[in-house]
Amino acid sequence: MLKISLEETVAGIGPLDGEAMAAAGARQDELIKPKGSLGMLEDISVRLAGIFSQNKPTIENKIHILAAGDHGVVVEGVSAYPQEVTPQMVMNFLAGGAAINVLARHVDVRVIVVDAGVNAELPPHPDLISMPAGRGTANMAQGPAMSLEQARLCIENGISIAAREIESGADLIGTGDMGIGNTTAASAITSVICDIDPLEVTGLGAGIAEDQREHKANVIRKAIDLNRPDPSDGLDVLTKLGGFEIGFLAGVMLGAAAAGRPVLIDGFISGAAALIAYTICPAAKDYMIASHLSVERGHGHALQHIGLKPILDLGMRLGEGTGAALAMLIVEAAAKCLAEMPTFAEAGVSDKE
Amino acid sequence: MLKISLEETVAGIGPLDGEAMAAAGARQDELIKPKGSLGMLEDISVRLAGIFSQNKPTIENKIHILAAGDHGVVVEGVSAYPQEVTPQMVMNFLAGGAAINVLARHVDVRVIVVDAGVNAELPPHPDLISMPAGRGTANMAQGPAMSLEQARLCIENGISIAAREIESGADLIGTGDMGIGNTTAASAITSVICDIDPLEVTGLGAGIAEDQREHKANVIRKAIDLNRPDPSDGLDVLTKLGGFEIGFLAGVMLGAAAAGRPVLIDGFISGAAALIAYTICPAAKDYMIASHLSVERGHGHALQHIGLKPILDLGMRLGEGTGAALAMLIVEAAAKCLAEMPTFAEAGVSDKE
Repeated sequence: MLKISLEETVAGIGPLDGEAMAAAGARQDELIKPKGSLGMLEDISVRLAGIFSQNKPTIENKIHILAAGDHGVVVEGVSAYPQEVTPQMVMNFLAGGAAINVLARHVDVRVIVVDAGVNAELPPHPDLISMPAGRGTANMAQGPAMSLEQARLCIENGISIAAREIESGADLIGTGDMGIGNTTAASAITSVICDIDPLEVTGLGAGIAEDQREHKANVIRKAIDLNRPDPSDGLDVLTKLGGFEIGFLAGVMLGAAAAGRPVLIDGFISGAAALIAYTICPAAKDYMIASHLSVERGHGHALQHIGLKPILDLGMRLGEGTGAALAMLIVEAAAKCLAEMPTFAEAGVSDKE
Repeated sequence: MLKISLEETVAGIGPLDGEAMAAAGARQDELIKPKGSLGMLEDISVRLAGIFSQNKPTIENKIHILAAGDHGVVVEGVSAYPQEVTPQMVMNFLAGGAAINVLARHVDVRVIVVDAGVNAELPPHPDLISMPAGRGTANMAQGPAMSLEQARLCIENGISIAAREIESGADLIGTGDMGIGNTTAASAITSVICDIDPLEVTGLGAGIAEDQREHKANVIRKAIDLNRPDPSDGLDVLTKLGGFEIGFLAGVMLGAAAAGRPVLIDGFISGAAALIAYTICPAAKDYMIASHLSVERGHGHALQHIGLKPILDLGMRLGEGTGAALAMLIVEAAAKCLAEMPTFAEAGVSDKE
């Protein structure tokens, strides 16, 4: 696989095509409906036009990239589930038995499962991409979660996979995560980049109690105080706080932006990856579509920081890319309305008086 | 077609199956995900279990019922578009060239177009169900929009079509509307049943200006003062304020509830129909699923009055059932997660510590 550097990728991320967006917006105003009446579907369609640099973009080949990684910070007792669940769930994704598999079948998207850094020897599987940047991160409460080289490696791994899939025709990319302990890393990243106290952006994860939430926030505070990540340096934040799947997904987002393809942010973990990608390259945000608002309390802050408005708000907090998969249907609907609806004149219907 | 009376239908609407709901809820708690992490998808799946009286209901055969009607009140200058647009759009639906057709293809649902009372001689078409309860309603600002017999007729027409389609296998029913002037009728109905001043529940419809909105609210106020509809009598409210497509859709909702099938409320017009159906038979509300929140300002009040929480909030206000069509995908996803996900034990994954 072609290795693409982070710097080369960032250099390749340009602004959206303003002409295509203007043309799409003008057509939306002529389509057979009251102007603006398709709301967010119209906004999404115009953004897709800018991303694809086409007046009527079409989506034909969706993929969903699900990255898994482990987190050394779990030894601090921050998670409701044991670490062994990460590799078990990876095998379950490959067997088709998780929520994301059900939803991926529903929305007709192919799922790519990636070992971005799971703390286990995973048996080879034809559908598993094995690109671990390590066997789980180190405990961020005792030092950096990973080395700078590992941070760069997991991001560039994500870039490579995005580039490969887009080269093969992918035109809408979903992101998803699995990793016991990864809401702790995501909360830490969100706290630092958004400059918000850890307790404000630390939630119940997969199901801890309220007093454990305070402990989790204290662990995060300790990690931040110890490692002193630079909020303006996404690579430094990733290095200090982890995790490998978060870095991988940030790479997927940057790779999608560089190739001019839309990428769907899922929930809180994808949101933290988006914060890393956005901090590294603010222009990447125009290629990001926020699929849903997670009930994890830091997610709204992350989306607001980047300037993204979520499509769905269904009270979900599962991860795996379940929100991204559902939102794909809305993004496709937006593209189809722009591409397939006739104008008033084309349909021979009287326009506004 | 079998004629089913309103009274017979209402008598057939019972409570949801509590046992099936309890079984579905218990299974949701064992599925391979943190408890509650699918949010609204879990709530919807439990309600579907109660509606279908099955522990794991499946959706196989969706239909979308799009009812059109005209409104005599348009002579008061309340609408942005001329009345001729109603029959033109009906022909456009039949030709497959409207937003609802694009979205119906996207979500794979069959569209049934009904002339519930259009003010035109519509040419016969194999896909058009012709059941007009009149050639458009009378002007509610001068007297009742229709006779009591017409109100009963359009509701019973809706009941009959719902019953026929469910008999043929339909297991998820979408509702949609077309009718120039129908936001005026919907605002009037919402004002009366929710007991809110007309100006508070009157929006810009398909695109009038703010000063026209005040005029529209004044026309509604005049109609209410003149006709004095009884807010506790849904049939009386429909008679006084119209319209035929609203009554037809109320009938579809009652018919779906009587047959134990879920019915998706679309936007403001479907919401007004839901208010009529709910006022006639409060138990029908358990069979209603609110697809989205329209930007028409009365819609939120209508949903709140009935006690429904919308699935989507995309800033849409197009009608035709465009919101209902999109939400079908979420309802199907909810059913599939319940039916197809394994439990932790079935998947051999460690549960919470």
